[in-house]
Amino acid sequence: MHSLQFTAESSVNGMLSRDFTVGDVPGVLWSPAVTTVDHTPLVLMGHGGGTHCKHPSMTGRAQLLVAGFGFHVAVIDAPGHGDRPRTAHDEKEIAELFRTRAAGEPEGPIVVRYNAYLASLAVPEWRMTLDALLALGDYGPVGYFGLNMGTAVGVPLVAVEPRIVAAVFGQHWPDALAEAAKQITVPIEFDLQWDDEHIPREAGLALFDAFGSEEKTLHANAGRHKDLPRFEADSAVRFLARHLIRTT
Amino acid sequence: MHSLQFTAESSVNGMLSRDFTVGDVPGVLWSPAVTTVDHTPLVLMGHGGGTHCKHPSMTGRAQLLVAGFGFHVAVIDAPGHGDRPRTAHDEKEIAELFRTRAAGEPEGPIVVRYNAYLASLAVPEWRMTLDALLALGDYGPVGYFGLNMGTAVGVPLVAVEPRIVAAVFGQHWPDALAEAAKQITVPIEFDLQWDDEHIPREAGLALFDAFGSEEKTLHANAGRHKDLPRFEADSAVRFLARHLIRTT
Repeated sequence: MHSLQFTAESSVNGMLSRDFTVGDVPGVLWSPAVTTVDHTPLVLMGHGGGTHCKHPSMTGRAQLLVAGFGFHVAVIDAPGHGDRPRTAHDEKEIAELFRTRAAGEPEGPIVVRYNAYLASLAVPEWRMTLDALLALGDYGPVGYFGLNMGTAVGVPLVAVEPRIVAAVFGQHWPDALAEAAKQITVPIEFDLQWDDEHIPREAGLALFDAFGSEEKTLHANAGRHKDLPRFEADSAVRFLARHLIRTT
Repeated sequence: MHSLQFTAESSVNGMLSRDFTVGDVPGVLWSPAVTTVDHTPLVLMGHGGGTHCKHPSMTGRAQLLVAGFGFHVAVIDAPGHGDRPRTAHDEKEIAELFRTRAAGEPEGPIVVRYNAYLASLAVPEWRMTLDALLALGDYGPVGYFGLNMGTAVGVPLVAVEPRIVAAVFGQHWPDALAEAAKQITVPIEFDLQWDDEHIPREAGLALFDAFGSEEKTLHANAGRHKDLPRFEADSAVRFLARHLIRTT
């Protein structure tokens, strides 16, 4: 088993921010400034395609969880993202995505295919990282929060990872994810944009429908793909707090 | 114009509760114990079919708004409900609803028809009541919150009432409401049960889709009609607070 190595430490918006590696996977662990691991919930967050573990959407959500509830939050760079090298296959798929966009063709097929490939690599990396994080101390319940590519990685992860007890997903296609979603039974909150120009409404609704969870909530907002309202981050954090605190 | 007459006053769970009449319409106004009208938001709430203005679902939601945000909350009895007399037409429609349920037939057609009839009477009563309430003092922005029959009444009300600036609806069919919903442009939050045994999923989604609002949010939860989670009341109240306080 790979252990977790802290490589840098700083203070970001009142949070303790610690860069780490597990094997060759880099990540970041955000914690309250006065940090005690003792039974405190841990939230794993998956970043979006083309971004990385310290993207502003990650630091913003982490701050809601750390400052608002005293939770710990961990994010790792997905394969080919952030500080990690791109393979020839990554370069080929990214070039194809850009070509598709430039041509005004639907990007769904390439995003679905490439994200499924990345997820097949990222799921074992996440499980290795979770092992290493939990070896650091006595964390409380574990949650997951990831939209877009964070959902493509998170759905197969939560489907096989019994230590994750609640999850926030959203904004993806059912094609490569519906079968894994059927295996998920923990409470979920799912975000969808009602007028998404990339993900057809019926596709988003079908993915939400696929989850096996007895407790699942769909939040669909008017607007295009990038218009997901900021108040949904507040909602996601409240959802995680409700489930992670109550199961402590 | 009918003025508002207070007929009784009591303290309920720390709220000032005042019964009133406007013409022959009875209602209740809940306020903070130390009450000042000065620019405080006012929320109108519509009760469900077969209930009345002081049903526990109304007092519970009122308390969230009054204790949580210091708002004023008004509810009136719908025609044929609560302390109001039933007409022969009411009796006939209610008997038909009970017959339908006992026979295990879909109740949608009768609920849609009877609620549309009640709404045609209730909308002018609500506008008269709002006139009388606003004549009492300098209230702030006005919101509306009503599910089930409260949506059947509320959608045509909000469509014609420019003084209502945000609304929470849910759990109804589009048949009699979609045209009015298209006229509504204020922010809305809409609740739907994903496994509703009375309202087909496509029907609920079609009503949400019909709203003309640029800002609209659908909350769909797994479960049957009566299983709407209690946390959706908290969400509705946060939604109203966000819009009524920001527009003060």
